Amino acid sequence: MFEQLGLIGCGLMGGSFALAMKRAGLVKRVVGYSKSPSTTERARQMGVIDVEAPSALLAVSGADVVLLAVPVAATEATFKAIRHLVTNSMLIMDVGSTKREVVDAARRVLRDHIGSFVPAHPITGKELSGVEHADPDLYHGKQVILTPIEKTQTAHLKRAQALWEGLGCHVQQMAPDSHDAAFAAVSHLPHLLAFALIHAIDGQAHGKDFLGLAGPGFRDFTRIAASDPKVWRDILLSNRVELVEQAKMFQRSLMNMLHLAETGAGEKLEEMIAQASQVRAQWHMGRKK
Amino acid sequence: MFEQLGLIGCGLMGGSFALAMKRAGLVKRVVGYSKSPSTTERARQMGVIDVEAPSALLAVSGADVVLLAVPVAATEATFKAIRHLVTNSMLIMDVGSTKREVVDAARRVLRDHIGSFVPAHPITGKELSGVEHADPDLYHGKQVILTPIEKTQTAHLKRAQALWEGLGCHVQQMAPDSHDAAFAAVSHLPHLLAFALIHAIDGQAHGKDFLGLAGPGFRDFTRIAASDPKVWRDILLSNRVELVEQAKMFQRSLMNMLHLAETGAGEKLEEMIAQASQVRAQWHMGRKK
Repeated sequence: MFEQLGLIGCGLMGGSFALAMKRAGLVKRVVGYSKSPSTTERARQMGVIDVEAPSALLAVSGADVVLLAVPVAATEATFKAIRHLVTNSMLIMDVGSTKREVVDAARRVLRDHIGSFVPAHPITGKELSGVEHADPDLYHGKQVILTPIEKTQTAHLKRAQALWEGLGCHVQQMAPDSHDAAFAAVSHLPHLLAFALIHAIDGQAHGKDFLGLAGPGFRDFTRIAASDPKVWRDILLSNRVELVEQAKMFQRSLMNMLHLAETGAGEKLEEMIAQASQVRAQWHMGRKK
Repeated sequence: MFEQLGLIGCGLMGGSFALAMKRAGLVKRVVGYSKSPSTTERARQMGVIDVEAPSALLAVSGADVVLLAVPVAATEATFKAIRHLVTNSMLIMDVGSTKREVVDAARRVLRDHIGSFVPAHPITGKELSGVEHADPDLYHGKQVILTPIEKTQTAHLKRAQALWEGLGCHVQQMAPDSHDAAFAAVSHLPHLLAFALIHAIDGQAHGKDFLGLAGPGFRDFTRIAASDPKVWRDILLSNRVELVEQAKMFQRSLMNMLHLAETGAGEKLEEMIAQASQVRAQWHMGRKK
């Protein structure tokens, strides 16, 4: 389907994408670039990429599909680094967890070539980062959100959809702003809560002892707290407006429940728990309700 | 090791305990009672208990070991129901997730027989309740906290320790108050946060759509939000003092991080995330640090 993938960022997301594309027979050759030369070399040694590019620009040269798998804060600089070789026939995508900032950067930098860019957010990940954890199954069966804008070329949008479906993904489209509100609620705020909980416990006199007593509920609840700090700093900063909105709504629910517990209002407290419990019990990943 | 287990409460925790005791050859006969006659009948049909008792009192009759596997709020009433048949040679335990209230209830009701009671908290569970989900492996490899008081008989404490070890558990002792502070931090507050998050999302105009987009991070973070409402109402009420303390410390961390995101203080934000990420990455369940 594609001749050459230009991969910018050979970490967990980028490396897994390259492996999945190759396994699915969707690309013949992968030219990769990472900011750290040792990562690029490692990726080539592992067979994740075929050729090391000495710059982001040269990774794009000759590619018919380009994936930016860099932290969202690095997106604009990456667009700038590659724009002189971007063509209208080239499909360019990213994998960023926030979309409004990415789309704004693309508008500013790519200008006349903005139609080549199809913003993408595959909903997957691991709490372990780096090319060492690259996994051809990372995308399989997962959802991918595409957030096209009015200038996105329909042909590229269709190729992008076919590509992700070829990797076993369920694809849907949303506006960038709706995407960011939704993921502030179901991903960015939960990460922030998990970070804050660990922080609060670790900062206590007996915090280390407390952690030694924690069980499987805690293990699952805090799994995302082990996520990559740079990636998550960027996501939280990039989506701060929606994050703060979601945090306010969360605080209202939390304060309400705490107040019910403090005042011994068991009946009303049980009602709120029962509602949450029912919603969560009926939820299944990837199913729209 | 024991002749007869008197099981009061044949749900997930009680039923799993009976199955585990039988499989380990630690008890010959299980006499069970549940508030709901259909649960007791179901437990007998499933082979979880051998004999149905028509009352809590009669479940205790002739037992050399008694397990109260009832919601913490029902503990005092259960002690009152059985106290006329409690003897000093009988080992009595509970499985409650909070311990100060349970110990206070035992002191008030059991009086001279308080020495028979060894308060226990096995750190295990499932988000599915009821005897249908009883599982002989529920306790295996898990931690059990015993919170003896000054009047607890040493002989009973030793028997309790041997019993749980016989089920494959790691046993440790703590004071009831320390236990409650620790579990407010690593269990009760996380449950409250998970309930509040689901509540906040579900209450939004597009909340149902947002939930349809949630991925594996959300799945694990909110797994505990599907927990049993009555059980968790009781736990949150029972441990409200420690819970509020832990919530205050959590709020300070959360507000701090949100403020850093809002003001674009990326460096300091990354530092806090990195600290949390490192603590969580180095944490392993059941290992004291």
